[in-house]
Amino acid sequence: MNNFIYHNPTELVFGKGQIARLSELIPAGKRIMITFGGGSVRRNGVYDQVVHALEGREWVEFWGIEPNPSVETVREAVALGREHGVDFLLAVGGGSVIDGTKLVAAGLLYDGDPWDIVLRGKADRSVPLATVLTMSATGSEMNNGAVISRRETREKLAFYGQYPVFSILDPETTFSLPARQIACGLADTFVHVLEQYMTTPNQSRLMDRWAEGILLTVKEIAPLIRADQRNYDAMSEYMLAATLALNDMIRMGVTQDWATHRIGHELTALHGLTHGATLAIVINGTLRVLRKQKRGKLLQFGERIWGIAEGSEEERIDHTIAANEAFFRSLGLSTRLSEEGIGEETIAEVERRFNANGYAFGEAQNVDGAMARRILEACR
Amino acid sequence: MNNFIYHNPTELVFGKGQIARLSELIPAGKRIMITFGGGSVRRNGVYDQVVHALEGREWVEFWGIEPNPSVETVREAVALGREHGVDFLLAVGGGSVIDGTKLVAAGLLYDGDPWDIVLRGKADRSVPLATVLTMSATGSEMNNGAVISRRETREKLAFYGQYPVFSILDPETTFSLPARQIACGLADTFVHVLEQYMTTPNQSRLMDRWAEGILLTVKEIAPLIRADQRNYDAMSEYMLAATLALNDMIRMGVTQDWATHRIGHELTALHGLTHGATLAIVINGTLRVLRKQKRGKLLQFGERIWGIAEGSEEERIDHTIAANEAFFRSLGLSTRLSEEGIGEETIAEVERRFNANGYAFGEAQNVDGAMARRILEACR
Repeated sequence: MNNFIYHNPTELVFGKGQIARLSELIPAGKRIMITFGGGSVRRNGVYDQVVHALEGREWVEFWGIEPNPSVETVREAVALGREHGVDFLLAVGGGSVIDGTKLVAAGLLYDGDPWDIVLRGKADRSVPLATVLTMSATGSEMNNGAVISRRETREKLAFYGQYPVFSILDPETTFSLPARQIACGLADTFVHVLEQYMTTPNQSRLMDRWAEGILLTVKEIAPLIRADQRNYDAMSEYMLAATLALNDMIRMGVTQDWATHRIGHELTALHGLTHGATLAIVINGTLRVLRKQKRGKLLQFGERIWGIAEGSEEERIDHTIAANEAFFRSLGLSTRLSEEGIGEETIAEVERRFNANGYAFGEAQNVDGAMARRILEACR
Repeated sequence: MNNFIYHNPTELVFGKGQIARLSELIPAGKRIMITFGGGSVRRNGVYDQVVHALEGREWVEFWGIEPNPSVETVREAVALGREHGVDFLLAVGGGSVIDGTKLVAAGLLYDGDPWDIVLRGKADRSVPLATVLTMSATGSEMNNGAVISRRETREKLAFYGQYPVFSILDPETTFSLPARQIACGLADTFVHVLEQYMTTPNQSRLMDRWAEGILLTVKEIAPLIRADQRNYDAMSEYMLAATLALNDMIRMGVTQDWATHRIGHELTALHGLTHGATLAIVINGTLRVLRKQKRGKLLQFGERIWGIAEGSEEERIDHTIAANEAFFRSLGLSTRLSEEGIGEETIAEVERRFNANGYAFGEAQNVDGAMARRILEACR
């Protein structure tokens, strides 16, 4: 087991009706800015619940943090927050709203352009931030990461800021989500776990078990959710799984990968494809191209998640990679670039960007431009 | 899934050599009191590491927090801390030193007798506290609970105070522990998980998997540790398992039991038997007497932890309870009261205490005096 530091101070407030506790959770006297996405919270009742919970408090609202939140939008929110002397942010939405708000929180205490913070990869100071989660996928409600896009250059980059002070997760807020968003959320959750699990075997038995626990849960609940998206218990497991998949709890003492994510971010930046949908495609290429390097974990993943224990090791790995792809297809997602109309032009651009930036991602830092091309060709 | 709040702010600093970071972890200017147990840290080098790491800082030392820490000792530590104007506590030891120090931390900010805090069950204010863990079992290094004994009345009660600010876990500090202490630590860890798992089935698939992940890990590492107590990876898993077994991470949205612990505490109070050793006995009685109530989880526990999937359900439960007892015996621990010379007199006293206090513990709150007697008779 490798040395590690774990420190996640976010308070998780989980369950039906918990939005009503907002006012007791936000310290008195704070000048609050509430940030929203495109308006679905008006239709599903979450906006009304938030307003009701904050009766007697004062706040300003910022609307319009878009999917794959852009620094252009963040700049507008920072300007509004400054104008009102805001010192507490409440993000109400999914991962995009929360990620954008993390950069707003840092931007409010930074004199220059917020994109500087993204390029530096790290925010030194932030206004405190809390969330009401309405779409589970990114885990941003309980981690310190955020991914920001820059429209003018079609870039998409991650930075690390602060953990939310608290996050409210009410599974009922997810009942009215489009089925495709939930499918992408399940895919995102599954691949978040794989990024921390599909690495060198025998680093930590316990972390392996916890990662596998999330994978098995997602596998089991996916058909239940497809059958009934208002199944409270299944949606609770989904919300909890998405949070625990990326809140540092399954990465204690183990190495990580994240090459699939970095390639996926390029596909989103270039094509606007939803993050989870990019992962459902790229992960298949990653596993095929890096099957030797990931051999031990692929065998373990096959046996413990997909029940594949018969045949030669090569056959078991073949079946495991096929079972994994079949799972993403069962979610209704594409697993090949061609299904999304993505071809050589994009592959060449991703390779070019990796080379131009000197990227070398993945556990073994061997996913450079040439390897990114091979991975994309393997899921073509 | 039940509504829940999870909020664990402790920073976990894990691995070889991490004690050297003490000085950067304790804020400058703090008047530190370091609390110790009986002196084993002088023999195993931990004391020297702590002193070296704190070079240039000032502190006062309090020695002699005993196993099953007593309020009598805590009173002395509070007096010393007051005398020196202490505003930061560093507990160096196992669960007993940490538990005792939690009451010192609360006692320093309380005008009356610390036992009042224990009786109230909750500390309102505490001086900040950190730990260097040298013996894994109780999980106290990453939770807000503590169990305190009162020698004059032979009582042992739990209270809730603060989470440590940080805890340093270096697996090498456990290499020189007596084998019996490690066996008791493994038993304690295993039963901590069972208290949060062996309840109503289907409350959370994910929490079940995480609980089972710890149980499987403990089961797998126990023989490795018996073979070589200086196996760094195995001792790392042991330390991590003990912490994660009782730091709130496996109890999100699920009910808990804790009746076995409450009966075990009485055995410690009356006989001085080590905490983990009491659990290794009582749990067998609990599972036998409550087998109907715990039927669904016993079947799941049998299948997923012990691989028992053949035979009628009653047979499977029989085999599961037997496998569980055999595991504790494999640790070298007693699993029957008679092996520890405990008989009717103690059973009667435990029953009397439960009745006198109106206790009704367990998930179903049905472990009263009569049920405690039945449980103890079933592990006689």
